[in-house]
Amino acid sequence: MSFKLTILGCSSAIPTVDKNPTSQLLSANESFFLIDCAEGTQVQMRRYRIKFQRINHIFISHLHGDHYFGLIGLISSMHLLGREKELHLYAHPPLKEIIDSQLAASNTELCYPLFFHPLPYENEQILFEDNKIEVSNILLDHGIPCSGFLFKEKLSLRKINSEKINEYNVPIDQLKFLKNGDDFITIEGEKISNEILTTENRLPISYAFCSDTKYNDRIVEKIKNVSLLYHETTFMEDRKERAIETFHSTTIDAATIAKKAEVGTLLIGHFSQRYKELDELLNETKSVFDNTKLAQQGMQIDFSDL
Amino acid sequence: MSFKLTILGCSSAIPTVDKNPTSQLLSANESFFLIDCAEGTQVQMRRYRIKFQRINHIFISHLHGDHYFGLIGLISSMHLLGREKELHLYAHPPLKEIIDSQLAASNTELCYPLFFHPLPYENEQILFEDNKIEVSNILLDHGIPCSGFLFKEKLSLRKINSEKINEYNVPIDQLKFLKNGDDFITIEGEKISNEILTTENRLPISYAFCSDTKYNDRIVEKIKNVSLLYHETTFMEDRKERAIETFHSTTIDAATIAKKAEVGTLLIGHFSQRYKELDELLNETKSVFDNTKLAQQGMQIDFSDL
Repeated sequence: MSFKLTILGCSSAIPTVDKNPTSQLLSANESFFLIDCAEGTQVQMRRYRIKFQRINHIFISHLHGDHYFGLIGLISSMHLLGREKELHLYAHPPLKEIIDSQLAASNTELCYPLFFHPLPYENEQILFEDNKIEVSNILLDHGIPCSGFLFKEKLSLRKINSEKINEYNVPIDQLKFLKNGDDFITIEGEKISNEILTTENRLPISYAFCSDTKYNDRIVEKIKNVSLLYHETTFMEDRKERAIETFHSTTIDAATIAKKAEVGTLLIGHFSQRYKELDELLNETKSVFDNTKLAQQGMQIDFSDL
Repeated sequence: MSFKLTILGCSSAIPTVDKNPTSQLLSANESFFLIDCAEGTQVQMRRYRIKFQRINHIFISHLHGDHYFGLIGLISSMHLLGREKELHLYAHPPLKEIIDSQLAASNTELCYPLFFHPLPYENEQILFEDNKIEVSNILLDHGIPCSGFLFKEKLSLRKINSEKINEYNVPIDQLKFLKNGDDFITIEGEKISNEILTTENRLPISYAFCSDTKYNDRIVEKIKNVSLLYHETTFMEDRKERAIETFHSTTIDAATIAKKAEVGTLLIGHFSQRYKELDELLNETKSVFDNTKLAQQGMQIDFSDL
């Protein structure tokens, strides 16, 4: 399965000429998932030649403007360009009213079905799944309801050993049970241990998006071993108090979470506008978790390169 | 009095990498008036080095997204940057609810006073005035409630002739009556005709913004003799039917209005994305009204050069 992440914007709060606030596009096996949608996101997608009509699912982490003010424009452009296929939107309940009132004000009836899926406030659950991927929410800690998202490839626990399957004449309809770790019972009633017929599968490819949040190690268990963790680092460690006050994280916070969760790679972003020299944030983060990358607008990460 | 207009965006419907939908900044004697605010407007102002905290009055013509989707972002950035002074917003009533629900969703209490002035649906009136300028609405015809705006320098009808004032010993407190065209009565009861004491004043500087609308010559009287008329020309004349269907104007419509209203200069904009060669629109408009300019992003018009 191929996972690719494009950073459309990674600054915080205010859009400027060369810095867009949060938005990312995850392409998972050719399915396009948009994560957050700051003002200007649709133009960013044009800039990076992403066909935004291919997006079927949009996830909005929370209702601060730097994470969703571009959404109504995108919804509207999809309509003006004659979209017909469904669009699924996952966000906290007030966003439905905001969108509905804007469509009503312009007397617009969308020419495609828009399904609104309210994000839960207090529990974590699967938001979407098909046969290849599942997406669930991660409860974050940001003053207003805020949700991270975990995208996880669906992969069986065990991998079939074709040679052994033939040797023991295992019928095809039994394979799904073997993949789950079950043993096989022959017609004669003999038990063949799962370990003989299968091998351990690789870890599923996974991506955890965690922005915005203050340090909260309750999320460690949920994001354990993810291939890539995006974690906000609004501030450097010398502004730890400011980070706590504003429900944001520091470089060291993000690195500590990454280390505890034993993630493959850490990607940091959502930098405060005060930082002109981002290498300082990167170096500080690396002092705790070495395999860290700095999010940059337009950057594309192919998970197979991680 | 100095009037300067900056075109922040002048395309229609969908923002692209190099084309922003409608937004204009009118600077009238150092007061900043923002007219419409499409997505990306705050970044356009940064691009053209316009200090957006200087804007005290924002006028939104109608609630199609390409005229206001950037407003909540601008309001929000003004807040994040610590604005303290009042902001006055003139728009149709549903916009108040849209803004309020977005501020509520982010738990934001603005750090500056935002005054919402509902635009009238059925009558034309003065929306704002100070001692130098008055702004009124122009009822347009666009399917949903839509308003143009007329910005007009306040100028007395007659200009004082200082020499004659001295000669006839006219007291200072009488000057305002003379400026309005009244005659002067001396202590002896002698009537000195206004024509002796004053001369005709120049026309006031004025700017009429008319977007979006289908052809409607009811507006001619209202915008008579304005220095500059911005009138939308979404389509060329061969798409007249499409213009009528979508409540838009053609090049010839705009030129006809300009001609009937005997305006100084016509500025055309809000071009459909279908037109790559804008000179064709300009030439078609000029065939009816020669003193026409093509709106272009970043263009600045100094009214003293018209």
